[in-house]
Amino acid sequence: VSGERMAAEMREQPDVLARLLERRESSVSGLRRVLPDDLRGIVLVARGSSDHAAVYGRYVIEAASGFPVALAAPSLHTLYRVRGRYEGYLAVAVSQSGRTPEIVTVLKRLIEAGACGIAVSNEADSPLVEAAAAALHLDAGPEDAVPATKTFSAQLAAFCFLAEALGQPPWQAADWKMVPEAVRSVLDDPGRAAEAAGRIGSSPGLLCVGRGYLFGIALEAALKLKETTSLLAEGFSAADLRHGPIAVVQRDFPVVTMRAEGPAAADMEELTDLLRERRADVIEIGPDCGELPFPAGLPEPLAAFPVVVRAQQLAYELALLRNIDPDRPEGLTKVTPTT
Amino acid sequence: VSGERMAAEMREQPDVLARLLERRESSVSGLRRVLPDDLRGIVLVARGSSDHAAVYGRYVIEAASGFPVALAAPSLHTLYRVRGRYEGYLAVAVSQSGRTPEIVTVLKRLIEAGACGIAVSNEADSPLVEAAAAALHLDAGPEDAVPATKTFSAQLAAFCFLAEALGQPPWQAADWKMVPEAVRSVLDDPGRAAEAAGRIGSSPGLLCVGRGYLFGIALEAALKLKETTSLLAEGFSAADLRHGPIAVVQRDFPVVTMRAEGPAAADMEELTDLLRERRADVIEIGPDCGELPFPAGLPEPLAAFPVVVRAQQLAYELALLRNIDPDRPEGLTKVTPTT
Repeated sequence: VSGERMAAEMREQPDVLARLLERRESSVSGLRRVLPDDLRGIVLVARGSSDHAAVYGRYVIEAASGFPVALAAPSLHTLYRVRGRYEGYLAVAVSQSGRTPEIVTVLKRLIEAGACGIAVSNEADSPLVEAAAAALHLDAGPEDAVPATKTFSAQLAAFCFLAEALGQPPWQAADWKMVPEAVRSVLDDPGRAAEAAGRIGSSPGLLCVGRGYLFGIALEAALKLKETTSLLAEGFSAADLRHGPIAVVQRDFPVVTMRAEGPAAADMEELTDLLRERRADVIEIGPDCGELPFPAGLPEPLAAFPVVVRAQQLAYELALLRNIDPDRPEGLTKVTPTT
Repeated sequence: VSGERMAAEMREQPDVLARLLERRESSVSGLRRVLPDDLRGIVLVARGSSDHAAVYGRYVIEAASGFPVALAAPSLHTLYRVRGRYEGYLAVAVSQSGRTPEIVTVLKRLIEAGACGIAVSNEADSPLVEAAAAALHLDAGPEDAVPATKTFSAQLAAFCFLAEALGQPPWQAADWKMVPEAVRSVLDDPGRAAEAAGRIGSSPGLLCVGRGYLFGIALEAALKLKETTSLLAEGFSAADLRHGPIAVVQRDFPVVTMRAEGPAAADMEELTDLLRERRADVIEIGPDCGELPFPAGLPEPLAAFPVVVRAQQLAYELALLRNIDPDRPEGLTKVTPTT
């Protein structure tokens, strides 16, 4: 059956997250043991979906630690062979397979340049894990569908654990227990995603918009939609969208907006009003509200988990509607060789 | 006449660059005087077109200095009020007007958190310049058209000067003299851009692809096209495009590729072959080659100047073809208030 693997892997997410949360405290203390004494900054190394998890990670880590977080530009290390100055830096490399040659090479180069390397991977024995001083194993089980789903959620959790290891995160330990249940509740309600997919229909394009902690999720939602449906979907922060790209939003143009309870909510509401003035077809992912609701009560950063599952559902349903097999979109492979 | 201002501002670019280059050495030594003694890293603060100049800056600064370069996430400082740890960091804020409230606020917050602040602006007396320890004045003259053109080129040059102040850049001082001439040569040949615009015609979407030093230029090209023509244009690095988004490229889909002479050329050629296999309509910006050629002989980072002017021409011609006034795209303003 078309899309069987992606659907099954999406459904595993509450269990994958619950398993990771069982070893949250030991993961956090394990990470703390390898941190540089005189930490100067953090750099994240990733591509594709993992890179969008890293954008999320960039926010939660800086919010918790106060340290600037950079996203590595791999070509500086692979193509241009820059001699880096990474003493006192923590380098966190993220790859589902742990075998993407570019990511392994960049982590090795940053370690040579003085960084302490950490691997986040779904493969305990991968080259990426071998290269690192410590690893966070996602333990999500094999992921066979081309679009990453359960490993993406697990990567978000890994970045939250890193944030906890590095400082005071913008959530309480007790908030975690709501997360697997919120994800399960969304998974139990696929009908609304099918309805929203019907509204997008054969539109050639779509925008996904978030802000702050949900910006990386908007990027990931757009990538999922591109990969599985060939739709021209682009992700934006609400602030960037206002700076020009909003020009593409004409009457009936579909825009997926992501809102949680917290400091970014007012800005998202204001943007949503602006989109409605332009007569966009707004599909809102919101706390107990909007076309694609998720359970209210989560702190803004942790709302990312149910929000991304709503986006996965939308991509999945739209692929089926467009008669595309989301497990194996044409011309894509699971591990992408890049230099 | 529609597009008169954008056209005039584009034509000023060789003079704007020549003027900046006349005071290159004094700008570089001025910057060196304010650098922190124990530099730990660099963070860039920008939105919109300036943010794409910052992506370019991120590459040239890290290539020259070896230090990690982060792009600031403004909401961490404006919405979430994170207490930053930026001692020993250089914070470079870029805003054409120097009056974007968000950018001014973020620079002030980073300075409070310990950073040394530098302003890059086209306004010598702006709030951004007042907040900073030193400023690089673009001196590009008033820019009235909504799409930034001459201030974008000037921002690229400013980032190059910063790279020179911070280390050994991947070009020679003598290479600069080719830059204004290369830009002028492109401006003297608008006909090919009009032809390429004709090929794009009424396509709903388009991708722009670069790698390494030209990645930020691909992002800027896509933004110019979105702003001026409402086309769904998205910018990618060649490496990211392979990781899934290539799924959107179907037969006859227009893709603008950017290639210069240097380490990234082979990767761009390989990607171009892949796009042609998918029967994309490839519009190449290349050194003495492709649909939109520019003069060969420039080092890869400095090729960004004529390449972005090719992209500006394409956006301008496509706007005219679509009967849109590129000076004042509907619903956009020059200074965007964001919080």
